[in-house]
Amino acid sequence: MLTKKPLILVTNDDSIYAKGIKELIEVAKTIGEVVVVAPDSHQSGKAHSITIFEPLRMYKKNNLFGDIEAYECSGTPVDCVKIAKKVALKDRKIDIVVSGINHGSNSSISVIYSGTMSAAIEGAIEGLPSIGFSLCDYDHEADFSHIRAYIKQIIEQALSKDFPKGVALNVNFPGINSGEIKGIKICRQANAKWDEDYEKRTDTNGKDYYWTSGILQNNDLGEDTDEWALKNNYISIVPCRFDLTAHHEIAKLNTDWKF
Amino acid sequence: MLTKKPLILVTNDDSIYAKGIKELIEVAKTIGEVVVVAPDSHQSGKAHSITIFEPLRMYKKNNLFGDIEAYECSGTPVDCVKIAKKVALKDRKIDIVVSGINHGSNSSISVIYSGTMSAAIEGAIEGLPSIGFSLCDYDHEADFSHIRAYIKQIIEQALSKDFPKGVALNVNFPGINSGEIKGIKICRQANAKWDEDYEKRTDTNGKDYYWTSGILQNNDLGEDTDEWALKNNYISIVPCRFDLTAHHEIAKLNTDWKF
Repeated sequence: MLTKKPLILVTNDDSIYAKGIKELIEVAKTIGEVVVVAPDSHQSGKAHSITIFEPLRMYKKNNLFGDIEAYECSGTPVDCVKIAKKVALKDRKIDIVVSGINHGSNSSISVIYSGTMSAAIEGAIEGLPSIGFSLCDYDHEADFSHIRAYIKQIIEQALSKDFPKGVALNVNFPGINSGEIKGIKICRQANAKWDEDYEKRTDTNGKDYYWTSGILQNNDLGEDTDEWALKNNYISIVPCRFDLTAHHEIAKLNTDWKF
Repeated sequence: MLTKKPLILVTNDDSIYAKGIKELIEVAKTIGEVVVVAPDSHQSGKAHSITIFEPLRMYKKNNLFGDIEAYECSGTPVDCVKIAKKVALKDRKIDIVVSGINHGSNSSISVIYSGTMSAAIEGAIEGLPSIGFSLCDYDHEADFSHIRAYIKQIIEQALSKDFPKGVALNVNFPGINSGEIKGIKICRQANAKWDEDYEKRTDTNGKDYYWTSGILQNNDLGEDTDEWALKNNYISIVPCRFDLTAHHEIAKLNTDWKF
């Protein structure tokens, strides 16, 4: 039994003003002491980027979430985790990092572009249990009511079990319109990719520019993937690592390549 | 023997105006037909970020690299690879993506923050042989003369051998001041992390801001790591993947966690 309330760092990539982070805070505060350090603006697609050439700002936001201690930061989601650890919470021990709830899916290859998941992965790099939560609904006013109990259950498990070292969990939830949730599946990342389109336009000064859009191409039909789980109304959980080494290729390169 | 010159896409994260990309183009043009699509500004630390909420611009730069076809792009290194494939080179088949030469190391955990390596990993996601090159020297006017022959050799091998699927190579070179290069080692990513410091200052309006700096903490003494190789004057090559799944944790989570 916990004698002290766990300290939960909450961040996201949709900004501290998004509905999703408010929902996550509502759940987290029923479990532990919550401190929020989140971006002051949209940081979707910012991946694992960090601020190097510009100064960072971090300001306390009183009463944004009632009596919860909260800071907005001018940097990326990864900056938020770093500055939270070293400045906002420098004398306190973070028990878990939770990121989200993202407005939109971060399944399959999207994990690599995701600010939400990069914040969680940064937590893992810092040796902390870390989870990114995403709802497969891009609406700014999305309904999160069907997933609150699951988020509570997952955070509680993460705090009570041996959390895997060097790993962040990528949790994706089906949107409410896809029907009743059937349960939770531990999955691998589907081998899918985005197929982009660049629409060329001309600005009012006669200069060309492009708007990007993309469609997810999933050619991975495995029933052990996150895409399969979500399509079949399960919550997907993918354990993600930050060691990018393709270990199985080392021996092959040593044999086949000649230097 | 190749009957047609291979098409080499060159990009980087230090911008199209950096010395490192010029050096890489000089080598690449001795091997194949070169097309450059690179950022119009510094993109260090931009990781795998993509531009979503803003338009992208891409303009042809005549005579920047003699008669080499070159475009500058307002986006990130990953945007450059995507728009190169879909717009600049839409009717042509890219044979290899090369990114760099980065001014500074991208070994161990730096790979995850690196725009240079993220461009290469995006190439791998697109199914293309892809290599990121970095020199462990942060000087804008760094000396690349000692690594040109190695870069040529590595690109030629990549074009002639079976390039591993879903993999990008992370190639790091010791700086010239570290002594003579002893050879090339295929390595795993060292389990290191950055330890940041945030120096608090006050701007002329009386508002606080922070400047970040960091020191790499390497507690991984393995002689099969990139950090070991570089420290011992070897070129390190780490095969990197974009499937972040910690596959070995799936069974454990299924056994230990209860939902």
